[in-house]
Amino acid sequence: MTIAAPAPRAQHSTIDSTAVREIRVAVLGLGQVGSAIATLAARAAGTLPANVHVAAVLVRDPQKPRGIDTAALPMTTDPRTALASKPDVLIEVLGGIEPARTLVIEALNAGIPAVTANKTLLAYCGSELFAAAAAAGVPLLYEASVLAGVPFLGTLGRRPLARSVTGFRGILNGTSNFVLTRMARDGAGFDEALASAQRAGFAEPDPSKDIEGDDAVEKLCVLLRHLAGFDVHPSQIDKTGIAGVKGRDQQHATAFGGTVRPVVVADWSEPALAAYAGPAYVEGTTALSRVDGVQNAIALTTRWSGELFFSGPGAGPAVTAATVLDDVVEASRKGQTVPVESQPAPPVTSLNDGAWFIRLTSTSLGEADAPSLLASLGIRLRGVSHIDARCGRHSQWLLTHPCARVHLDAALDLLSAKTGCGAWRIPVLE
Amino acid sequence: MTIAAPAPRAQHSTIDSTAVREIRVAVLGLGQVGSAIATLAARAAGTLPANVHVAAVLVRDPQKPRGIDTAALPMTTDPRTALASKPDVLIEVLGGIEPARTLVIEALNAGIPAVTANKTLLAYCGSELFAAAAAAGVPLLYEASVLAGVPFLGTLGRRPLARSVTGFRGILNGTSNFVLTRMARDGAGFDEALASAQRAGFAEPDPSKDIEGDDAVEKLCVLLRHLAGFDVHPSQIDKTGIAGVKGRDQQHATAFGGTVRPVVVADWSEPALAAYAGPAYVEGTTALSRVDGVQNAIALTTRWSGELFFSGPGAGPAVTAATVLDDVVEASRKGQTVPVESQPAPPVTSLNDGAWFIRLTSTSLGEADAPSLLASLGIRLRGVSHIDARCGRHSQWLLTHPCARVHLDAALDLLSAKTGCGAWRIPVLE
Repeated sequence: MTIAAPAPRAQHSTIDSTAVREIRVAVLGLGQVGSAIATLAARAAGTLPANVHVAAVLVRDPQKPRGIDTAALPMTTDPRTALASKPDVLIEVLGGIEPARTLVIEALNAGIPAVTANKTLLAYCGSELFAAAAAAGVPLLYEASVLAGVPFLGTLGRRPLARSVTGFRGILNGTSNFVLTRMARDGAGFDEALASAQRAGFAEPDPSKDIEGDDAVEKLCVLLRHLAGFDVHPSQIDKTGIAGVKGRDQQHATAFGGTVRPVVVADWSEPALAAYAGPAYVEGTTALSRVDGVQNAIALTTRWSGELFFSGPGAGPAVTAATVLDDVVEASRKGQTVPVESQPAPPVTSLNDGAWFIRLTSTSLGEADAPSLLASLGIRLRGVSHIDARCGRHSQWLLTHPCARVHLDAALDLLSAKTGCGAWRIPVLE
Repeated sequence: MTIAAPAPRAQHSTIDSTAVREIRVAVLGLGQVGSAIATLAARAAGTLPANVHVAAVLVRDPQKPRGIDTAALPMTTDPRTALASKPDVLIEVLGGIEPARTLVIEALNAGIPAVTANKTLLAYCGSELFAAAAAAGVPLLYEASVLAGVPFLGTLGRRPLARSVTGFRGILNGTSNFVLTRMARDGAGFDEALASAQRAGFAEPDPSKDIEGDDAVEKLCVLLRHLAGFDVHPSQIDKTGIAGVKGRDQQHATAFGGTVRPVVVADWSEPALAAYAGPAYVEGTTALSRVDGVQNAIALTTRWSGELFFSGPGAGPAVTAATVLDDVVEASRKGQTVPVESQPAPPVTSLNDGAWFIRLTSTSLGEADAPSLLASLGIRLRGVSHIDARCGRHSQWLLTHPCARVHLDAALDLLSAKTGCGAWRIPVLE
């Protein structure tokens, strides 16, 4: 479309989505999200601008009992049949890489717009997928892959100035945020909090992908590509799981005025890209410190628009289904998101500078031992707890002023050599 | 566009905004925002997908000294000349109703897409403007009219399920939020806090539109139309200014664990539309309580996606200019926001039920007088301050559990009759 000669009527026909009578979709996968999509497409018929007709559903086992009435669903175990249904939009909610990767690329090559909620696929195969979408000139939308319930990726994709981002910090994993929130609120230990998350249905029977940070890292990589065009592999990101966080860390964080949360941080305002996914001490004055339970949030540092903050439900079949169906509506319109030009990522480092929250543990640590040694090494502290002595072990928590990580780690090594105490440190978000 | 027969190449030509070489704009108004737009269009040239060429600028006085170099700007005092420049997009940043209303409608009728940041124009003339846009089939975009720096209106406009909203609460006026934040943080009085806002450039020489709540009410009306299609006149909204908030109200709110902020609230989940703009006690556990200074925020209660929260800079020439230019980029693409069908608004009421924050003042009020009388009338309290006696006046602050407003007001009237004390109450947001 060239702008010099606007064609109002032509524009009107694209504005007026009532022109669209029906959107035929093929759904790959009928797990919790796939089932929620099939259900919501029917329930929300009056709200959607067009009837979303499920033309095919790819499943592994048609006999498998599911939470919904599948009688009317055209299930197939054959990917060819699913694509042969000539959908207007392909919905991929299989999760994982294969066969999702092959099938989405096949659909894009055939000129079929695709919608996915699969952050693993995007994180590991992004370049390949977006190249296929660009070559075919069809949209590949993935609003539900990060902050599943909160629309913001598409907006930024369409708005070049708002997308001029130089970094972000967020809470992108609901399971680990639920666990750490519970530990902070109820003084629960990690195992107890995780068990309650599993009872509440907020954690998988095998929660390792959430607890160890892989899910957050994949979302971080999706954001780096979307916001900066960086092609970063998940293995390049400094990742720490939350299993090392103890109930007493939360108690002392609270005493310092903050809370420990599972965060992602990225900053490319400098030549290098500094990124981290793991637990951090979040200052109580920040909006991020009020993002509780399974809520997710992201704060973007933009060049022209200051800090933009988006939060809401980060997961769950129902909200994911709503976001996927809104993507289907968008994919059925013209004027889609302009893909960011992919560009080589700068060198990737961890967080190098900033304040730190530290737990020291030893058999015999005196109140002033650590503070005086650190002070003598130029590490300034703004929070020091009393020694907490239990079961013959002495623990102490410290909050530093900003300092270089290498400087802090050298000081902690020296402290360990002198006093034999072990140190655990996480970054501070202010 | 009918979806049954997708045309990948055709879609590609609309996806690929590099096809757009230049977007010619006419800018109505060269105040702070207009000047920032002219400056940013040049500074951000590398970021924008097309060269934004200012073809005409409508001003009242070409000789007026402005903060920018206007030598290269084609200024005119004649609206006809501005529209005759055949812009691809009209930008209206005059503010107020006339001549903005007449000129925007003229442009729309001529098939020229329009972008405005003018919430007053939208609040008072919305039906007329959107009818003209729909009739001409051209977009009328207004992302900068609410939460100026934060893109969310266009997103919701494009996404029917995310836009299934039944109510919202927000902080939409930066000036009054700066004033109440300062009062809470530094214990400043209202006049002192307002003076510091004016020194910082966050308040107009005549701040009445912000302080008395008119600006917030206009934004509330823009949101009601955008999210629900309700055509509500600003005069229908229950409005309270913030000048009645005292430094000691903030001190006691803090003691109760919250803070007093200038909010807007709307809820149409019931047959009636309950709406309010004015000061409220905001619970410290909410994200809204962490929105400080000139930041703005909105929390939307959605039918399918839970609570969505957006926050960021709410005003300022630079961020407003960035949002307006992103709107210009969007207006130059196909597939614009689908206008919400206008519908008659339900009966508009104020907030009828909820918890309340109360200040009682009299010459002789005993510690237990109010609590015992209110308890006898079935008003349950969750916060009671000690009597604060200064200059011969006794003041006391109360925080109630949820109760009906009519019930509370009757109780306060009786209290006043019995003890002669005056009562000031604001709603509580939890």
